[in-house]
Amino acid sequence: MTRHTKTRKKKIGRPPGTMVFVGEQKTDRPLISVMDFTADHLDEREVKKVEQLAPLRDQRGTSWINVTGIHDTTLLEKLGAAFGIHPLTLEDIVNTAHRPKVEEFDTYLYLVMKMLHYDETKERIVSEQISMILGSHFLISFQEAPGDVFDSVRERIRKGKGRIRNSGCDYLTYALIDAVVDHYYLILERLGEQIENLEGELLDELPGKQTLQTIHHLRREAIHLRKQIWPLREMVGLLSRGEFERIQPSTHVFLVDVYDHVIQVLDTVEIYRDMLGGLLELYMSTVSNRMNEVMKVLTIIATIFIPMTFVAGIYGMNFEHMPELHWRWGYAAIWAIVAAIAIAMLLFFKRKKWI
Amino acid sequence: MTRHTKTRKKKIGRPPGTMVFVGEQKTDRPLISVMDFTADHLDEREVKKVEQLAPLRDQRGTSWINVTGIHDTTLLEKLGAAFGIHPLTLEDIVNTAHRPKVEEFDTYLYLVMKMLHYDETKERIVSEQISMILGSHFLISFQEAPGDVFDSVRERIRKGKGRIRNSGCDYLTYALIDAVVDHYYLILERLGEQIENLEGELLDELPGKQTLQTIHHLRREAIHLRKQIWPLREMVGLLSRGEFERIQPSTHVFLVDVYDHVIQVLDTVEIYRDMLGGLLELYMSTVSNRMNEVMKVLTIIATIFIPMTFVAGIYGMNFEHMPELHWRWGYAAIWAIVAAIAIAMLLFFKRKKWI
Amino acid sequence: MTRHTKTRKKKIGRPPGTMVFVGEQKTDRPLISVMDFTADHLDEREVKKVEQLAPLRDQRGTSWINVTGIHDTTLLEKLGAAFGIHPLTLEDIVNTAHRPKVEEFDTYLYLVMKMLHYDETKERIVSEQISMILGSHFLISFQEAPGDVFDSVRERIRKGKGRIRNSGCDYLTYALIDAVVDHYYLILERLGEQIENLEGELLDELPGKQTLQTIHHLRREAIHLRKQIWPLREMVGLLSRGEFERIQPSTHVFLVDVYDHVIQVLDTVEIYRDMLGGLLELYMSTVSNRMNEVMKVLTIIATIFIPMTFVAGIYGMNFEHMPELHWRWGYAAIWAIVAAIAIAMLLFFKRKKWI
Amino acid sequence: MTRHTKTRKKKIGRPPGTMVFVGEQKTDRPLISVMDFTADHLDEREVKKVEQLAPLRDQRGTSWINVTGIHDTTLLEKLGAAFGIHPLTLEDIVNTAHRPKVEEFDTYLYLVMKMLHYDETKERIVSEQISMILGSHFLISFQEAPGDVFDSVRERIRKGKGRIRNSGCDYLTYALIDAVVDHYYLILERLGEQIENLEGELLDELPGKQTLQTIHHLRREAIHLRKQIWPLREMVGLLSRGEFERIQPSTHVFLVDVYDHVIQVLDTVEIYRDMLGGLLELYMSTVSNRMNEVMKVLTIIATIFIPMTFVAGIYGMNFEHMPELHWRWGYAAIWAIVAAIAIAMLLFFKRKKWI
Amino acid sequence: MTRHTKTRKKKIGRPPGTMVFVGEQKTDRPLISVMDFTADHLDEREVKKVEQLAPLRDQRGTSWINVTGIHDTTLLEKLGAAFGIHPLTLEDIVNTAHRPKVEEFDTYLYLVMKMLHYDETKERIVSEQISMILGSHFLISFQEAPGDVFDSVRERIRKGKGRIRNSGCDYLTYALIDAVVDHYYLILERLGEQIENLEGELLDELPGKQTLQTIHHLRREAIHLRKQIWPLREMVGLLSRGEFERIQPSTHVFLVDVYDHVIQVLDTVEIYRDMLGGLLELYMSTVSNRMNEVMKVLTIIATIFIPMTFVAGIYGMNFEHMPELHWRWGYAAIWAIVAAIAIAMLLFFKRKKWI
Repeated sequence: MTRHTKTRKKKIGRPPGTMVFVGEQKTDRPLISVMDFTADHLDEREVKKVEQLAPLRDQRGTSWINVTGIHDTTLLEKLGAAFGIHPLTLEDIVNTAHRPKVEEFDTYLYLVMKMLHYDETKERIVSEQISMILGSHFLISFQEAPGDVFDSVRERIRKGKGRIRNSGCDYLTYALIDAVVDHYYLILERLGEQIENLEGELLDELPGKQTLQTIHHLRREAIHLRKQIWPLREMVGLLSRGEFERIQPSTHVFLVDVYDHVIQVLDTVEIYRDMLGGLLELYMSTVSNRMNEVMKVLTIIATIFIPMTFVAGIYGMNFEHMPELHWRWGYAAIWAIVAAIAIAMLLFFKRKKWI
Repeated sequence: MTRHTKTRKKKIGRPPGTMVFVGEQKTDRPLISVMDFTADHLDEREVKKVEQLAPLRDQRGTSWINVTGIHDTTLLEKLGAAFGIHPLTLEDIVNTAHRPKVEEFDTYLYLVMKMLHYDETKERIVSEQISMILGSHFLISFQEAPGDVFDSVRERIRKGKGRIRNSGCDYLTYALIDAVVDHYYLILERLGEQIENLEGELLDELPGKQTLQTIHHLRREAIHLRKQIWPLREMVGLLSRGEFERIQPSTHVFLVDVYDHVIQVLDTVEIYRDMLGGLLELYMSTVSNRMNEVMKVLTIIATIFIPMTFVAGIYGMNFEHMPELHWRWGYAAIWAIVAAIAIAMLLFFKRKKWI
Repeated sequence: MTRHTKTRKKKIGRPPGTMVFVGEQKTDRPLISVMDFTADHLDEREVKKVEQLAPLRDQRGTSWINVTGIHDTTLLEKLGAAFGIHPLTLEDIVNTAHRPKVEEFDTYLYLVMKMLHYDETKERIVSEQISMILGSHFLISFQEAPGDVFDSVRERIRKGKGRIRNSGCDYLTYALIDAVVDHYYLILERLGEQIENLEGELLDELPGKQTLQTIHHLRREAIHLRKQIWPLREMVGLLSRGEFERIQPSTHVFLVDVYDHVIQVLDTVEIYRDMLGGLLELYMSTVSNRMNEVMKVLTIIATIFIPMTFVAGIYGMNFEHMPELHWRWGYAAIWAIVAAIAIAMLLFFKRKKWI
Repeated sequence: MTRHTKTRKKKIGRPPGTMVFVGEQKTDRPLISVMDFTADHLDEREVKKVEQLAPLRDQRGTSWINVTGIHDTTLLEKLGAAFGIHPLTLEDIVNTAHRPKVEEFDTYLYLVMKMLHYDETKERIVSEQISMILGSHFLISFQEAPGDVFDSVRERIRKGKGRIRNSGCDYLTYALIDAVVDHYYLILERLGEQIENLEGELLDELPGKQTLQTIHHLRREAIHLRKQIWPLREMVGLLSRGEFERIQPSTHVFLVDVYDHVIQVLDTVEIYRDMLGGLLELYMSTVSNRMNEVMKVLTIIATIFIPMTFVAGIYGMNFEHMPELHWRWGYAAIWAIVAAIAIAMLLFFKRKKWI
Repeated sequence: MTRHTKTRKKKIGRPPGTMVFVGEQKTDRPLISVMDFTADHLDEREVKKVEQLAPLRDQRGTSWINVTGIHDTTLLEKLGAAFGIHPLTLEDIVNTAHRPKVEEFDTYLYLVMKMLHYDETKERIVSEQISMILGSHFLISFQEAPGDVFDSVRERIRKGKGRIRNSGCDYLTYALIDAVVDHYYLILERLGEQIENLEGELLDELPGKQTLQTIHHLRREAIHLRKQIWPLREMVGLLSRGEFERIQPSTHVFLVDVYDHVIQVLDTVEIYRDMLGGLLELYMSTVSNRMNEVMKVLTIIATIFIPMTFVAGIYGMNFEHMPELHWRWGYAAIWAIVAAIAIAMLLFFKRKKWI
């Protein structure tokens, strides 16, 4: 798929750290929303200028800066300067074709992952890149387009439910990863339903070309899905095993929980692939079966009537000297002969278990 | 299958540690049964209120608390409070779509595994989640539905047979895992019989669409089975290798024994998958073979009679000037010609080894 | 195959260490034969009562106790008591469905492996479980049925050939393992011959349903064989790498030799599986090829004669006004037309390279 | 493909370190261009004689010597002598069939990798070997043919853009590897487009033999591509993990970036292989489907008309005594009979869901 | 293939260290040639008696003893005694069915590998076992048959070219391994050419049964090749990583070079297997395609002419009352009807894109 490599071409030959936005612009103007909170305090606001964010860098408490829309490289550059983000990181943020990964820098952890949802109009899974910069007291998250996936986390912060207000940025990071991974289940469920429908179709009805194309389409979606999620396993595994100092030990148990979910998602994708492979084989066997049946009908009809027609043809000849034509019971004999042929053939097919 | 992801959707967006029961409620009211024993003493009773259990936490001797029915989250919360169970553990207990795993917490080991049995009415393998909390002097086990899989262990405790009364909670844990794994053999045996029947059908009779669907169904069951059991390998392996302090060295040899059984079960599942793959190939080859045979019959009949019919057709024409029609032996010659055609064709097929 | 799980069911729910003989009883009454030897002394006898064996446990020299027939659990219990064998080991000895493995206990090494031979009447490979208890001065081996596989070792002990009389029990253990592995080559050779015959059949003759079933049968045998031998690799590897103190360093080089043989056997089994996979593909391609050929013959005959028959049919019509019928050369013209049709069709097929 | 082993044969039997140019000569005369730079100084020139290069070896600053054309072994020998290059390295440089690798020598690191581009005339991916010798203050790169892949790096050196002028030879090495890997995306994109076109063809139109050959061709290209790139993963991984002292820590983060790209390229190649496998299956299923449809048309027509023709044949017979021929409504009855046959057949096919 | 296990059977039941020559005797009488050299001295001679070799064991300088023909076990026993070779090693030398491996003994390294060449008369790859005993100052190599593979090494020793005369036995060992591995490229090239020819055939012409058998034959050769070479990877890897003291560090770089070649050979064999798999699929798809085409021709002709023949048949009937027969334009109308049928059918096929 060109969707795997698309506008990467734009980048060729540029020095590293050059930001080139690859992907389609999904929002008009980047939106920056800030949630600034401690256990007993919450400040939520929209920000227009990057300059307003700079004080957050070293402030106590937890600041969550969410940037929606990543095509404005000037804005990102300013953000990078304000929070000390490495040019390679900025380059990765705007390169929406990136693999999920976690990378440690001196002053922050950089995480990339994929948000997936099913696009009903295009009828395929589309992915959106989510990047996160986890600093000492701030978390900057980048989305390509506005969406409601983080709303549940916002709600929990607002209501102060659970431990989210009492824990640091690393717990917030966990909460966002968890929200993204939880949405994968929606995709899985949809795919699962489609596979079940397909199976029902295959077992009950006569599969046609449409069925074949659906199998093919779903297999491609499963390949695509696996590619997006597979590297996440490694990334969340690294986070949960305490490889990074920025993740506090108390958060590990939650990340282990996310890790379990990622494994479960991958297991399910693998099972779907196995099942789709099985369905294709079932489809092909069914087609073979049907062709066999078609052939049998043709063969039965043809082998019964062709010899009979030959007999009729013989006595349709106009030879002067054909004694049978003048026999009293000639015509009746012919009927007897063709009946005998038909019965013999039917018995033959019976013995062959074709009928 | 949606059975792999089902009601996970309910959970999306909730804070971690929120218990959401996923699965179908399989029992009316949770039952709590307690077996409290030392080498020379056994106290067995049903308990109505969680509060009655609290003293067991620190009591000497071994307490086995078995909870049947996990949909009552209030009860589980109380239990969690009484025995110091982490909210994530409680969440995992009620999430019946969990992968087998073992997780170590400060005060207990948490184990999840799958009990499998064959549902005769649905004609498929159904799984039930078994969770266990192994504390210092207590073991809490959670079942989704009442069942007789642990009865053999209860019986051994009652009779004081074997070492079960003299050993600690870890040995009891082993005994329960062993009971669950032993039941896998019933599933394997049933699957094995179905595969053998299928093979017999394929080799002896003419396979039809039903056979194909049975192969497909069994393959799905084998995929499903493998998914349920595969992670158990890792879990029992960890337990048997002495990674956890709660498991006493004297119990390792028994866990190694269970580990051997799990490996054997997985080996057998793999062999079943190989065999089912082989059966599908056999099926498809058999169908091809039959189609070939059908085609040969059609071809033999058609190629013998079509030329003969043509000859008859020629002399059925009504041209005024057809000298052959007036020959004395014309009709006889025609019979000679069609006989020659038939014999030539038969010889041709003989040489081709079609007949 | 049910042969993978057979009477395991009998065991479900019993405490560990309960001996339940699974398998078919292959001999009437267990036979116990003892060979007691040092470098310059050999004492060979049959023993009726286990009690007679007890002194051997701590005696100097090497004692080889061979038990043929393992269905008598009372006898095994006595033996276990006399030689300090763990109940789990006794359970494993009588459970003939066990995987090859080596397990270290305080006073002995326990080894399980599979003796294989080809049963000519059942036309399949049957396996027999061989267990060995390697103590400090004794080796107890258990066979399911009398057989001649260990005769060569006995002969070497009797004749004092090689180092067998001068080395300890560990060397004797090696000699027995070696004898078993050597017999695998007979199975391989037989399988190899069958595959070669099959290949010859496929390349030279026309394959039929029988060929397909033979391929299927051999593939199953190869799967079965691999399952029996694969775990042996790990077991012999452990022995040869000096993981166990009971195996003296001087024996390692011999065990490495056996390890090489096991690897070679497994390699060959893998090659056989690849080859059988290749043969199935060859078979299916050959069937396709033949069907193509059949179809071509049918098509050539049918497409030549059907149009010609149509022409003949036209002039067999009884219309009053058919001017051609009265033409002088009408009949000859018809022959010219059908000849032209035939030639055109033949040229068409020629160009298509069908003939 | 012979392109995998080609003129390796020339080398057989020669002592190691013998330079034998394998491959086709792609340029007339080797060109040697030198870029000699520090942060504030750049000297760029063409060099005719190897002797002119010798002083560069120990000079401060960074010297990049690019050799285009590697068939002149005398020149390479001189170069080897001047810069202390091991004969085995020289042998590897001229052996264009080498696998990507990195090898550490006392005074330099030796790197081999493949430059890939799509040859429009041959319609396949061609590869060119790039070797690099990374010394303390110099980098010697070898290309088989002139090309523009390194032009972007040259441009950055000339303009002093980015950190390239301030960093050492190791960063320059990174820049060249990055330039090569970036070009892989062009190949991927082209392959991706071809696969997408193919998929469109398969889904919309009727696939013919050409489609099959294109699938086959693309699969071979994907196999070839994977072989060229796979070992690069290991090589760049080694470089980025700080295994070599010549690579400064500050360069690691850039090499990790390249490593990410290599992984992404390999992932995409794997996905392409999966997709091509899927397309082949789709193709074969489509062909089966179509054959089924063809068969159905034939069967419907034949089974309707063959019985009807038989009926007509019967009453074309010339028996003297055929009472039906003289019935008033005989002819009409025949039409009724053949219509009944046709309708019965159509209903039969309707029920079978063939029409 | 029985060639994988052949006369192994002879050995069953014998004590370890019993030399049993397995394989076919490929030479009359073993030839022993000795090359005895230091940097400035070379002594080359044929030796008749093993006793003459004994002094070489401890002599300074490098002695290369090459034994051609290994069926004379008495000679080997004497050699073993003279050079202190372990009986198991002698057993391995004469067992020509051995896997490539390296084994360390106290006084020597033992290496086994396979020399491969293409037997033009048998049309398959045949392998010959090469064993080497690397002692402190001597190297004994064993070949099954005379051959020219080591001639290039001999030539280099004679001419004193390269470092061979100045380096020790380990370098000589490397030189021999290198000579053997270099010859693998000839096999690869031949296989590669055959695959390319096959591909050309498949794409250009109509594949027949011969093509199928060639694919099958080449796949078997590739499986065989891989089996012979795969273990070499491990063996040369061990040698090159400095696991053995007998290999001097200065030789490691050369062994790494051989290791690269072995990897390259294996990569190429893997690619060949992938390509042959691809060719088989191409073959089967082509056969399917052709059958589809055949079916289409048959269907087109049959479905056009069968209905037309029916029409002609109707008016060939002899009913007394058939009004159409007496119509003036009846005959012309029939022609119009059959033409209409033909045109309708052709349009139908046109729309179906069959023609």
